[in-house]
Amino acid sequence: MNKGQFIVIEGLEGAGKSTALETLKECLTKQGIDFIATREPGGTPLAEQLRDILKHYQDEAITAQSELLLMYAARSQLVENVIKPALNQGKWVLGDRHDLSSRAYQGGGRQISMDTLNQLRDLTLGNFRPALTLYLDIDPVKGLARAKARGQLDRIEQQQLDFFKRARAVYLDEVTRNPQCIKIDAGQSLDDVQQSIRKIVTNFLHKPSYDY
Amino acid sequence: MNKGQFIVIEGLEGAGKSTALETLKECLTKQGIDFIATREPGGTPLAEQLRDILKHYQDEAITAQSELLLMYAARSQLVENVIKPALNQGKWVLGDRHDLSSRAYQGGGRQISMDTLNQLRDLTLGNFRPALTLYLDIDPVKGLARAKARGQLDRIEQQQLDFFKRARAVYLDEVTRNPQCIKIDAGQSLDDVQQSIRKIVTNFLHKPSYDY
Ligand SMILES: Nc1ncnc2c1ncn2[C@@H]1O[C@H](COP(=O)(O)OP(=O)(O)O)[C@@H](O)[C@H]1O
Ligand SMILES: Nc1ncnc2c1ncn2[C@@H]1O[C@H](COP(=O)(O)OP(=O)(O)O)[C@@H](O)[C@H]1O
Ligand SMILES: [Mg+2]
Ligand SMILES: [Mg+2]
Repeated sequence: MNKGQFIVIEGLEGAGKSTALETLKECLTKQGIDFIATREPGGTPLAEQLRDILKHYQDEAITAQSELLLMYAARSQLVENVIKPALNQGKWVLGDRHDLSSRAYQGGGRQISMDTLNQLRDLTLGNFRPALTLYLDIDPVKGLARAKARGQLDRIEQQQLDFFKRARAVYLDEVTRNPQCIKIDAGQSLDDVQQSIRKIVTNFLHKPSYDY
Repeated sequence: MNKGQFIVIEGLEGAGKSTALETLKECLTKQGIDFIATREPGGTPLAEQLRDILKHYQDEAITAQSELLLMYAARSQLVENVIKPALNQGKWVLGDRHDLSSRAYQGGGRQISMDTLNQLRDLTLGNFRPALTLYLDIDPVKGLARAKARGQLDRIEQQQLDFFKRARAVYLDEVTRNPQCIKIDAGQSLDDVQQSIRKIVTNFLHKPSYDY
């Protein structure tokens, strides 16, 4: 049996990740591909508990270091206990955020060194990487306006605009370095975004970049 | 105002750390020194929540990496939100476990590389270190028997004997490298242990190794 593929959707708040995930699911369902969907931080009982702390904790200030470590603790749980077992069973995994979010938010946003980010990635992921990352690129002003319209902003969504500008810069840098990371203009109409996603996924289905 | 001093008690399960802490408290109280006591993992609302996960989580296997990251997340919260503020107010801090426990348990016990342990220490503690560490050295067979007599063993206390033998080796190695870390034979009678502690603390009060 072939192993499944791990496809990740990335982008700032309100970029349209959750919306894009639905488009992705439709594409795979049409092809008869068995998949699961995950989100980060979260996706296991413990990781969801950590997600709740990361998004809503109010009893105490969370240090930047602690935020970073909790993100990677949640990621380790998800990858070892959910993603790898699913891929080994031949299922595909669709991730709403993954490691690149930490590089953008904790690296760019919180300005933790990329050296530290690389060390934590080595520790928790080894050389495990997504086969394809769809990065939905959006001006943070526009993205945050969309997120606000959706409801109350959480602890991380409440960061200053500069935080998200730095995060976006990391995302854009990754696109230039990593051929498995494809940028989609998320400022377009929903229809146009969906069409872009379908095109990229169709290409990928015909020629997945690499196997695990 | 002078800054307080940070004194840590270390050792395996059942070595007598909590008992030693009481002796330490008596010594400082007699000298009219204002102090707080902390424990690790724990000592802040969030860190205590992480302690509970680390000791009792059963819904899901915790990866070695995640265990390590949660320990350091808890430590970052405690050091930044409790220990440093107390020291800055001139209070002394008595710690029931600190960073050396992670080096012994996650480094020795779980065999995570000392390189990784050093990276996480740099990230979360910078060059913050205890002024004095009292290491209570005990044969793990003896320590675990004492801990068992005290009640049910938790997730970490249930590790195999070899785990604790490797942890003890890290503790013993630290003693040879670090003059601020003093070994006490915890296999002695409680009276003898207490006398050793009083002697060391009296010496330290006359000549604290260094200031923060
Ligand atoms: N291309 C788009 N144009 C306009 N609105 C969009 C677009 N994509 C998503 N939205 C809307 O923006 C909001 C945020 O989208 P969502 O998918 O929840 O973003 P994310 O998961 O990245 O935070 C939702 O209300 C969604 O319907
Ligand atoms: N030197 C000693 N000799 C005999 N028993 C001891 C000694 N020190 C502690 N104990 C007992 O061993 C048990 C474990 O001690 P405790 O201080 O809780 O250890 P720790 O906090 O290191 O796990 C307690 O019941 C305690 O009374
Ligand atoms: Mg979403
Ligand atoms: Mg104790």
